[in-house]
Amino acid sequence: MRKIEHLGIAVKDLEKSNELFKRLLGSERYKEEMVEGEGVKTSFFQIGETKIELLEATKEESPIAKFISKKSEGIHHIAFDVEDLESEMKRLKAQGFEILNEIPKEGADNKLVVFLHPKTTNGVLVELCQEKPIDA
Amino acid sequence: MRKIEHLGIAVKDLEKSNELFKRLLGSERYKEEMVEGEGVKTSFFQIGETKIELLEATKEESPIAKFISKKSEGIHHIAFDVEDLESEMKRLKAQGFEILNEIPKEGADNKLVVFLHPKTTNGVLVELCQEKPIDA
Repeated sequence: MRKIEHLGIAVKDLEKSNELFKRLLGSERYKEEMVEGEGVKTSFFQIGETKIELLEATKEESPIAKFISKKSEGIHHIAFDVEDLESEMKRLKAQGFEILNEIPKEGADNKLVVFLHPKTTNGVLVELCQEKPIDA
Repeated sequence: MRKIEHLGIAVKDLEKSNELFKRLLGSERYKEEMVEGEGVKTSFFQIGETKIELLEATKEESPIAKFISKKSEGIHHIAFDVEDLESEMKRLKAQGFEILNEIPKEGADNKLVVFLHPKTTNGVLVELCQEKPIDA
């Protein structure tokens, strides 16, 4: 756990929220990206060493669509930057945390990601991110 | 908006959550602090340039008690570090954001803080923090 890599915020309308966060942060998003596997369209804003990731669902089965219909728009997850995903997963499992996906998934912004089950993390959806190796 | 100053997480039992976040982050909290005005007991963990603040309600009327009874434990707010609170408040009001407290409050960790209304910020409770001047 080296730093907060990003904070994920579930939004209904990415275009409107891009405008809103531009006014809030005083800076432009630096990229938009589709993550097909998760059914989301994302955009990223840099703030200090971390990022804000806005997430809009692209289909009804998307976890983001479910989150919004259950809870409403808002902070969805916190992602930590890790150097070595495998060893961090091992460490956290030994500490009693439950990994939601044992096989790392492709995340946005060139990352391999796993999620921890919120029931083991005080209701917080925690993501671990590792920069994708160049040969992956 | 210079960086994410901290992330606030609402918890039911600070002592248990201190243990949990120690196992999660692999580091100890660096302080605990009561914030009487908000009816909360807090603890802080450093992670990179930012912090995680755990918040436990100390009375029923505390915003944290209300948040937990309405939503459950989880991420409560995101706080941005600002250099000059007054000018940032002015900028944000001009941009259409609603300030919840026009008069900055004493926050934890030697900060003056104001909150923005979540209805103007995509459902995200946003806090602005300025380091308290030495003569304040």
